[in-house]
Formats: sequence, C-alpha cells, structure tokens
Amino acid sequence: MSDFNAIAQSRPDRNAEQFTEFYYKTFDSDRTGLMALYKDQSMLTFEAQPIQGATAIIEKLTSLPFSKIQHEVASLDAQPSNTEGGILVLVSGRLLVDEEQRPMSYTQAFQLLPDGQGSYFVFNDVFRLVYGAS
Amino acid sequence: MSDFNAIAQSRPDRNAEQFTEFYYKTFDSDRTGLMALYKDQSMLTFEAQPIQGATAIIEKLTSLPFSKIQHEVASLDAQPSNTEGGILVLVSGRLLVDEEQRPMSYTQAFQLLPDGQGSYFVFNDVFRLVYGAS
Repeated sequence: MSDFNAIAQSRPDRNAEQFTEFYYKTFDSDRTGLMALYKDQSMLTFEAQPIQGATAIIEKLTSLPFSKIQHEVASLDAQPSNTEGGILVLVSGRLLVDEEQRPMSYTQAFQLLPDGQGSYFVFNDVFRLVYGAS
Repeated sequence: MSDFNAIAQSRPDRNAEQFTEFYYKTFDSDRTGLMALYKDQSMLTFEAQPIQGATAIIEKLTSLPFSKIQHEVASLDAQPSNTEGGILVLVSGRLLVDEEQRPMSYTQAFQLLPDGQGSYFVFNDVFRLVYGAS
C-alpha cells in the first residue's frame, strides 16, 4: 500500500514517466534503440498480433510501414504491479505518421519489471489504435 | 512462453474475455456488484485519481455522477502478467452515459490475479477517457 501511495503522490510516477519519455523519444528517432528495453521473455501485442522476445519485437517495430512517427502522450498513469517493484503503466496519446496531418489516438499498456541493475525492462506491452473518440 | 502462446492462440484470452464481459455487464446494471471483484489491496486510478481497497473503489464507482451507463468494448487484449497466473488486460471502447447520444472513447487496463478459488480479482485497474481520436 505504501508503494501505491508513494507512486500516487508523485503521479505520474517518476520511473514510469522517465521510461515513457525515453521509450517514445527512442521510438520516434531510432526504433532499433528499443532493443535494450526488451528481453527474451518480453511480450508485445501490437494491434492484436502477439510477438515474443526482444529480437522479434524489434523486427516488428522496425518493419512498421512508415518512415517517420511522432508520439504525443496525453495521459500517463502508473501503479505498482507486484511487490517486487513492477510497474503497470497506461498511456493514451496521439501519433502522427509520415506526412499525415491528422493524428490517430492510441492506447498502450506496459508492465515494467526491475532488470536487477537498477533499471527496468518491458515485460508486457500492448498497443492499440483507438477509433471514434469524441 | 507457452502461457503466452496459449493465450495468444485463443485471443482474446477466454478468462480475460469472460472477466471483461462480466465486469461491464455488472458496471452497467448494478455497480455495487463489482465489490466481489476487488480486494483490500486492489488499486484503481480513475481519471488520474488513485483509490485503494474494495470499499473505497466501490464508493468511487457508485458515486460517479450518472445514473445510466453503457460500455461497448471495441478491443480486448490479454497477456500473462507473471508466472503465477496473472493476466494483463487492455480494453478500449466507447461508453454512453444517461441520455447522451454521442459516445466517449475510453481505455482501461486491468491486472487480474488468481484469487486462490479458481477465479480472479482485480489487482490493478486504470481508467481513462480518450479524447480526440480520429
């Protein structure tokens, strides 16, 4: 409970915020750099397609059919996901691809787990475009 | 890995699907019935407001300022969240409140944990309205 209160008081939790900032900055500049955030046991469900393992995940992310992308985070929430330092992160935001002028909305949930070296890796990653929001 | 593959193959995972169907059906008919799905350690972050514990969570949900609500799930994804049977669920959808005709989009992430009696309880729950989707 104290973990949640601590996170709640610094909402959005600083670790989740730092991770998210790094994640999208890297995604938008050089997707191959995301490799360091995933491990063999990491899972990505990208628009309903399940992918497992850092290598396969980066293959998927780097093969997405756009050359430019820009994420803009609209909301970021974090909760402790277990008693071992895991963090559940829910992001909603907008993204622009290539020369498209109209942003698309998306939602993305992560579970971050401590990597044993003072940082985190992505254990769960679920991405969805959100259609038809008002 | 086999867990993820098993879940992926039956996507959306049946447990996540059954939970989600029950959750929104109960939410839309009698919010007090959600009490059974939360425990003292459960966390809800509702539009950035953190709440902990089944009683406080149900107080929040039942005090929301509308008398009728209808959720419509647009997407549902599930991944195992740990090796003890936990499930991460990401939902996106639309909701209508009272006599409003224009749906609002929302996203909601859950972590479900086994309750030791063959069912699940909600450990993490994060809810956000999504604005400005195309």
